[in-house]
Amino acid sequence: MITVLITGFDPFAKETINPSWEAVSRLDSTISNANIIKLQLPTEFKSSREKLRTAIAQYCPDIVLSVGQAGGRSGITPELVAINFDDASIPDNAGYEPHEETIEREGENAYFTQLPIKKICVTLKKADIPSYISTTAGTYVCNHVMYEAQFLRSTEYPQLKAGFIHIPFLPQQVVDKPGMPSLSLDDDVRGLTLAIETIVKELA
Amino acid sequence: MITVLITGFDPFAKETINPSWEAVSRLDSTISNANIIKLQLPTEFKSSREKLRTAIAQYCPDIVLSVGQAGGRSGITPELVAINFDDASIPDNAGYEPHEETIEREGENAYFTQLPIKKICVTLKKADIPSYISTTAGTYVCNHVMYEAQFLRSTEYPQLKAGFIHIPFLPQQVVDKPGMPSLSLDDDVRGLTLAIETIVKELA
Amino acid sequence: MITVLITGFDPFAKETINPSWEAVSRLDSTISNANIIKLQLPTEFKSSREKLRTAIAQYCPDIVLSVGQAGGRSGITPELVAINFDDASIPDNAGYEPHEETIEREGENAYFTQLPIKKICVTLKKADIPSYISTTAGTYVCNHVMYEAQFLRSTEYPQLKAGFIHIPFLPQQVVDKPGMPSLSLDDDVRGLTLAIETIVKELA
Amino acid sequence: MITVLITGFDPFAKETINPSWEAVSRLDSTISNANIIKLQLPTEFKSSREKLRTAIAQYCPDIVLSVGQAGGRSGITPELVAINFDDASIPDNAGYEPHEETIEREGENAYFTQLPIKKICVTLKKADIPSYISTTAGTYVCNHVMYEAQFLRSTEYPQLKAGFIHIPFLPQQVVDKPGMPSLSLDDDVRGLTLAIETIVKELA
Repeated sequence: MITVLITGFDPFAKETINPSWEAVSRLDSTISNANIIKLQLPTEFKSSREKLRTAIAQYCPDIVLSVGQAGGRSGITPELVAINFDDASIPDNAGYEPHEETIEREGENAYFTQLPIKKICVTLKKADIPSYISTTAGTYVCNHVMYEAQFLRSTEYPQLKAGFIHIPFLPQQVVDKPGMPSLSLDDDVRGLTLAIETIVKELA
Repeated sequence: MITVLITGFDPFAKETINPSWEAVSRLDSTISNANIIKLQLPTEFKSSREKLRTAIAQYCPDIVLSVGQAGGRSGITPELVAINFDDASIPDNAGYEPHEETIEREGENAYFTQLPIKKICVTLKKADIPSYISTTAGTYVCNHVMYEAQFLRSTEYPQLKAGFIHIPFLPQQVVDKPGMPSLSLDDDVRGLTLAIETIVKELA
Repeated sequence: MITVLITGFDPFAKETINPSWEAVSRLDSTISNANIIKLQLPTEFKSSREKLRTAIAQYCPDIVLSVGQAGGRSGITPELVAINFDDASIPDNAGYEPHEETIEREGENAYFTQLPIKKICVTLKKADIPSYISTTAGTYVCNHVMYEAQFLRSTEYPQLKAGFIHIPFLPQQVVDKPGMPSLSLDDDVRGLTLAIETIVKELA
Repeated sequence: MITVLITGFDPFAKETINPSWEAVSRLDSTISNANIIKLQLPTEFKSSREKLRTAIAQYCPDIVLSVGQAGGRSGITPELVAINFDDASIPDNAGYEPHEETIEREGENAYFTQLPIKKICVTLKKADIPSYISTTAGTYVCNHVMYEAQFLRSTEYPQLKAGFIHIPFLPQQVVDKPGMPSLSLDDDVRGLTLAIETIVKELA
């Protein structure tokens, strides 16, 4: 049986919720016969590698899919690549704010995802969910976590397939931000479910 | 018993659906004890006044609320004002494309809505639905219909309260438009229901 | 000889400059043989009518063209219409913050501009300056001043032709606002000059 | 004497000009005592590596700075990183349209720029020019050229410092695109000049 470890974040900046955890926590525990393990990660640079490693050691997932909030985007955006670079404009939830730092001295400059991101986009769009590929996960905790999962894959878990999906603000987060796009929690849950189905089908 | 005549449009431009009719047609037939009459209007300048007049004569509504699509907006936007001015950039569904024309020679330059638009916004935002007041309904069929309802009110039906609400694209309309905001049909239906509740409460 | 009274505003909100006065103050004193009178208006609701009336009485302009800042717009936007409605979200420079107030009890709901706004747009675009017509001047001091000029025209100066043009932020105002459009002061000055030329030509 | 090879592109897609070459071709031939060599590159994937190599062999530059158009951006955006990935949504000017292809089999997944991009941003902003760092050069010819310059550096010219700067549409390109940001050619030329000054100062 395939195991998918899916992570979401706790709220950061001035937000009181994080759509990533709202959506991840509502996923079914079985999707396409795959076992879905849900993990909340803190929006913190430093602790994320160990938290990911511990969970990978414990659950032996075939797939690690991390989900994060990308305020300003209008659709569900699978990420192409993670870069070896931390650069924060606000402190993380542990108060840490790195500037132009290398994440892993021994890591590559970047890692591409192993997930079928184009197929995910096509599947979501067929299901009436806005989706497009992103070529940058930024330089904050989202990129960091995507990078660390890849670094663990490249150094310790070569069988792993890993990737990252950004989702927009929820409607409730933009009520005072005229013009700012949002996506409903229903579409987030439906979209992530379809993404996992697409990944599992690809793997089989 | 209060009667609300609510109108939505058929699709126009290159769209195959119109969120306004999708949402209006899904409303309950009774909201806050008010009788909800649903009417589809064609996206046409010339026929709209007579269609509205016929429906008003038939149903004797207390309230006329028209709903239209505003591609590009991110929330549900009650309109403040309708102006006596038609100016199309594409033909309407009857092939008519007016340029800088007065709608009603005998009409005022503009009419303000009688609906409690600020209260509607506040109510929607409390319910986690993005909403903000709009100060322009444009110069296409939406403004035209809002204006004609007001003209009928001012000339024939002085007891009427009328207004217009624009809603964003649906998610399915923006799957190939990265960056373009959308709102779910659920939130449209919920938002219009709350708007009607707010209007009816205000009237009582 | 034709006289054009052109107004710009002082800075408001958190801005330290106002592109409208920066541009207006740099205009030539003669454009297309017309005499150009430049007037700075404070960003204040209450004083604007008297300041306009005094200037009109003093200079007897044929044309009153007011210019204001519209943060967020990407081009020079002549306004179609002013509405009889003040509604501020921040205090003006005199500390006054009206909510849903009628500007002039005796005024019409709205006044359309007498200026050839479509020709202005066409002229500017031919000169490589982004320009499009706006159908709302908002409900803050810009709309108020546009409305008051029209009210004075309709009640006291029937020969007057009046209108309003909104211009974007200057580049220096958006250095810390990634994604926010701006337009150069050179294009503002060139655009307003072309607008005046177009208006004067139309009048002659 | 320091030599800077600066490249711009010819027009692509439906555009008739490319702001990158418009700006690059107007640069002084000497900036901060550095010798400025200007090279127009075709918007083509396949020919770019050889064109770059030939120019590097001929001029022995200390710095290669490539400039490209990024329609939709509002400021001058130095790029952080180039990725080993071609994925076009429209054919290039030679009719070639790669999909999910590796640029260089022997290349790294990504290369970071050697240019002081944060200092460039700070310098431009102080000079009233909107500027922010970009973490993606996309997957079209711009990223390709940025990647190839880095690949040449890493394999053949280890002393080289290379990088890429994206600039917005020019105003004339957006006259029919309401809402689309632009930047003036003057600010492009001034911004690139300041960027080169910053790079040269850093090198010295």
